[in-house]
Order: sequence, then C-alpha cells, then structure tokens
Amino acid sequence: MTDTSPLAADLAPRILAGDRRALARAVTLVESTRPDHRADATALTEALRGHGRQALRIGLSGTPGVGKSTFIEAFGMALVEAGLRVAVLAVDPSSSRSGGSILGDKTRMDRLAREPSAFIRPSPSSTHLGGVTRRTREAVALCEAAGFDVVLIETVGVGQSETMVAQMCDIFVLLLAPAGGDELQGVKRGIMEMADLILVNKSDGDLKPAATRTVADYAGALRLLRKRPQDPDGFPKALPVSAVTGDGIAGAWGDMQALARWRRDHGWWDRARATQAAHWFEAEVREGLLARLKRDPEVRRAMEDRAEDVAAGRVTPDAAAAEMLEWLKA
Amino acid sequence: MTDTSPLAADLAPRILAGDRRALARAVTLVESTRPDHRADATALTEALRGHGRQALRIGLSGTPGVGKSTFIEAFGMALVEAGLRVAVLAVDPSSSRSGGSILGDKTRMDRLAREPSAFIRPSPSSTHLGGVTRRTREAVALCEAAGFDVVLIETVGVGQSETMVAQMCDIFVLLLAPAGGDELQGVKRGIMEMADLILVNKSDGDLKPAATRTVADYAGALRLLRKRPQDPDGFPKALPVSAVTGDGIAGAWGDMQALARWRRDHGWWDRARATQAAHWFEAEVREGLLARLKRDPEVRRAMEDRAEDVAAGRVTPDAAAAEMLEWLKA
Repeated sequence: MTDTSPLAADLAPRILAGDRRALARAVTLVESTRPDHRADATALTEALRGHGRQALRIGLSGTPGVGKSTFIEAFGMALVEAGLRVAVLAVDPSSSRSGGSILGDKTRMDRLAREPSAFIRPSPSSTHLGGVTRRTREAVALCEAAGFDVVLIETVGVGQSETMVAQMCDIFVLLLAPAGGDELQGVKRGIMEMADLILVNKSDGDLKPAATRTVADYAGALRLLRKRPQDPDGFPKALPVSAVTGDGIAGAWGDMQALARWRRDHGWWDRARATQAAHWFEAEVREGLLARLKRDPEVRRAMEDRAEDVAAGRVTPDAAAAEMLEWLKA
Repeated sequence: MTDTSPLAADLAPRILAGDRRALARAVTLVESTRPDHRADATALTEALRGHGRQALRIGLSGTPGVGKSTFIEAFGMALVEAGLRVAVLAVDPSSSRSGGSILGDKTRMDRLAREPSAFIRPSPSSTHLGGVTRRTREAVALCEAAGFDVVLIETVGVGQSETMVAQMCDIFVLLLAPAGGDELQGVKRGIMEMADLILVNKSDGDLKPAATRTVADYAGALRLLRKRPQDPDGFPKALPVSAVTGDGIAGAWGDMQALARWRRDHGWWDRARATQAAHWFEAEVREGLLARLKRDPEVRRAMEDRAEDVAAGRVTPDAAAAEMLEWLKA
C-alpha cells in the first residue's frame, strides 16, 4: 500500500523506531480531511498494522474543574519514572466552540511535556464527532506502532464523547472531585456503568474528609450496579487520589495493571478489542455512506433537486426519500 | 397510488371526513414496521397529501413532574370549548424502557379523552428515535387530513426528542414548574433557544409566589438570547399558568394565536414548513441508507464477513469500511 504513498513509506519506519517528530507529523496527517492526506493516512495505518504492540489504552473522563490536567501530569510522570513510555491524546468535540483545545493545557503539564518518553497531543478542532473519532482511533494506532506502553485518552464529561472513548479503550477511568453526597446523582448513570475505576481527586488538605465521603458514596453506588463478566472481584472500584501530593496515584496504577492482567488472562482483553474493531468498522461504513450524500456532486445535485420539490410541497418528504434511495441503488 | 392499496383507498376518504376510528387505524398503520403496512402507510399519506388543511402544530416539552398531563387536559378542554378540534400525540423515545407510554395517562386526561372533537394518541413503543420520528410526522399529517385545528405534540424533556419535535412544529412551548432561581440553569440552553413560549405551571396556592419569581427569571434569561427574525416583538415570552385553576390558559392560547398569525403574515410559517420538509427528506434518506445495511440480506452478509475479518485483526476497521463502501457502490 505504501507504494502509492511516499510520505507513508517515509514515516512508517520512523514511527516504528519511536521517533516522536514522525509520530507528531503522522497525527497531523490523520487529523486532516484533505483527500490526499486521507489517502496517505490510510496507507500509513495499513503499513503499520500488525507492527508495534498493544499499549494499555486508558480512557479518562472528567468534567472541567476536577483537576484533570494536574492528574494527568502526576499520573504520567509516575509512569515515566517507572520506565514506561506514555502518550496522552485529548478528545473534546466541544473544543472548537471555545476556540481552543483542553490540552492547550500542554502548558499545564509542563513537566510531562518535557519528558522524552512522553507524547502529548491536544484535541483537534472539529465540530464533527465522527471526524474526531476516526482521528483519535488512528492516533491511538500510531502511538501503539511507535511503541508507547500506555495511551491515555482524555475526554471531557459531556455528550457522547465518553461512550466513544470507552469503545476504544481497555480501561475506562472516571475522575471526580469531592462533593456532597447529594451531588452523586450529577454523574450520569450511563457513565458510571462504563467506569472500571472511579478516582476522587483532591483528596488532600481541607478537602480530604469530603473526598473520603465521596469515595464511600461512589463505592456504595458501584455495588448497586450489576456485576459485569469482564470484572474481577473488587472491580469496578472507587479510590481517593491527590494529583497535588501524589497520594493514591501509585495504588490506582497498580489497580489498573491488575485489572488489565486479569482481563488478558481471562480472554476479555482480546474479546473487547475484537468487538471494538467490529464496532468501528460498522461506524465507518455508516459514516462513509452518509458522507457520500454530501460529497459526491451528482448525488448532491439529485438531493438538492428533490429537497426543492419537497420544500415546495410537490411531494412528501417520505416519497422523495424513497425515490432518492432507489436512485442511489441504481 | 391507492390503486395498489385497498386499505389506503378505504381509509383515505373516511379520514378526510374526520372519522376518528379511521384515523386511529391509520396511526396504528404508520406505527407499524411491517413492510406491507409501510407500503399501505406510504400509499395513504400520498393519497392524503394536499387534502385537508394545515393545523396549528404545537410542540410541548416538559420534564416529568411539571404537570404536563393536567396542563394538556386543561389546555385541550379550553380549545374544545372554543369550538376547535384538537389532537394530542405523544413522543417519548424512552417510553419503551419503562414499559408504558406517558400518555397511558390517557386516563389522566379523562375529560379530554371523552370529547368527540379530541383525539389522544399515546407514544408508540420503540427504542429507535428514527422510527418514532417518522411515525409522528405521518401521524401529524393524518391529523391534519382529518381536519384537526390544533395538533399538540408532547415530548419529555430528554435527549434529542425536543429538537425532533421542534422541527415538526409551528410553535414550541416549554412547560416548567416553579423553582428557585438557581435551578434556572437546569434547563438546557439549547432547549430554551427553541422555545417560543415558556409556561410556568402550578401558579396557584402556595406555589404562586415561586411561580411568579420563576417567570421573572426566565423572562430575564429570554431577553439575553439573540433576537430571532421569526419572532414578533415580545416573543419569546414567559408566562405563569395553572392547569388546576385554569388561570393563564386563555392568555397563553391568545399568545400562541397571535404568534402564529404574525408568522403567517410575515412568511415565516411557510418558510419554516418548507425548511422542515426538506430537513425530513434528508433525514429519511440518511435513515434509509443505514437501514439497508441492516435489512438487505446480501448487504448484511457482506458486512458480517468483513466484521469478522476486522475482529480477527486481518484488516483494519477503516480499510474494511473503505472496501465495503466500494462494494455498495458497485
């Protein structure tokens, strides 16, 4: 495949050698929507497929204000100090609205950003969750090809981005701030059900008692959820951490490793990755079918003509749609 | 078209004559997903197109607990007593989960349900918003063909159902309960921006002062929103109502009529309906394309084969998707 893409042929071996500049270039490539870039990106991911190894993919979700950047800095540094290579990717479908990415916070992770064995990549600006999704999946694959041990995929606690991130991760972590017991309901049940680990941050100083209470509340709530087959005893669990003092970070990492090991040993890791891959295949086909409606000039013209008839009341939306679907089949 | 559907040929004239039993039968037909029923439904909507007249379509959104059933009963009775025919359709994509429709509450509207000039239809059970959408649009068209003056489309305040309902209505009403000022933020900005009228219910007895404050809060919030071209001066507006005492109901109806008249006179009514029709055409085409993936046996087999290859790691999700899209084109 790389025959047709000199760029992919140049980047692939460099990425496999762990070259961060080549990796950054490749991520930029997969973020692009230009057709020639897309072709290069496809050639590149195809060239890298099967090379490199599986990283531990950790999804991290938390609303603004829970201290996510500080946590990632502390957590990432702990991994780096343990001799691991760690990549951080951000997913924030809303970031284009605020004009900047959450990891424009790269500055708020200045220690980690300066580590040679770390790679930090802010969220691409796109209003389109489908686009962000594909780019993130490809970026994860690139990081794995580049030999990273851990890929941390960060997302803000809004909308569908958690579900999307959970469907590309081996472990899903929910980061929360200490709160009164009645705020527990603020976390959507759907998100709690995805969590493997709930970490209550800011468990230090004055907030420590509140954090302890919050951990107990969530531990109680987790026990009420149905037991999932992919969980060993004791999981999902809630733990206090402090990104500032570092308390609990090592323990949380130990739990993530234990969970990952158990899932590998019991077949859940491979099964989950296979299911995820099939899911993304289907999502891509759907996305591609819909994209054709917008991109193919002939299809667009046919759509516009019929939309006009519909707007003028000459035909019902449904009859026009049925006609259009026939046209597309032919 | 009705040549091919004896059922449609039978129902069409009866519906046009305002026969409620025929209407109920037709709504059941459009709710069905059976292919033969779909064909009948299409023939029927096509036969009825251009007949009947435009009803005033009012979307009504409100979370459980705001007294929606009681409000609809009071509002509907006021319309009936003014000599109008009113249809009530419920849209609740979540209702299949709880096992029952919100308008299983037909019993909670027992006066309205017994009126010969009223038609009440609970939400169909479907987990699929696309299906609920099509059925609701077709049911609205049926009610218009049956000569109803007002079609009230009720939805619960969750997820995407408001947006969907707003896109098939002439006027969108948000029903709220009295609340402390700090709860204002609980209403999503997106929903507020769709509202033409915010009604604060339960403005009676002990809750009256709280309702008055809530109205003032929302009136203030509405003033902060950008002025929309489709609004005359003074709209969108917030008003107190009481479904129990009837206070404010006549005034709210007067405001809805004034708004509808202004929009008709200034071209916004027709423009909105044309835009909505074009929107639903496009939505139907998208929906139909995706449905083909699931229904066409040959397509399904091709999808399953590739999904297996993807799950086994023999090909990336994206390469398999690209191949599948080529296959679909051929």
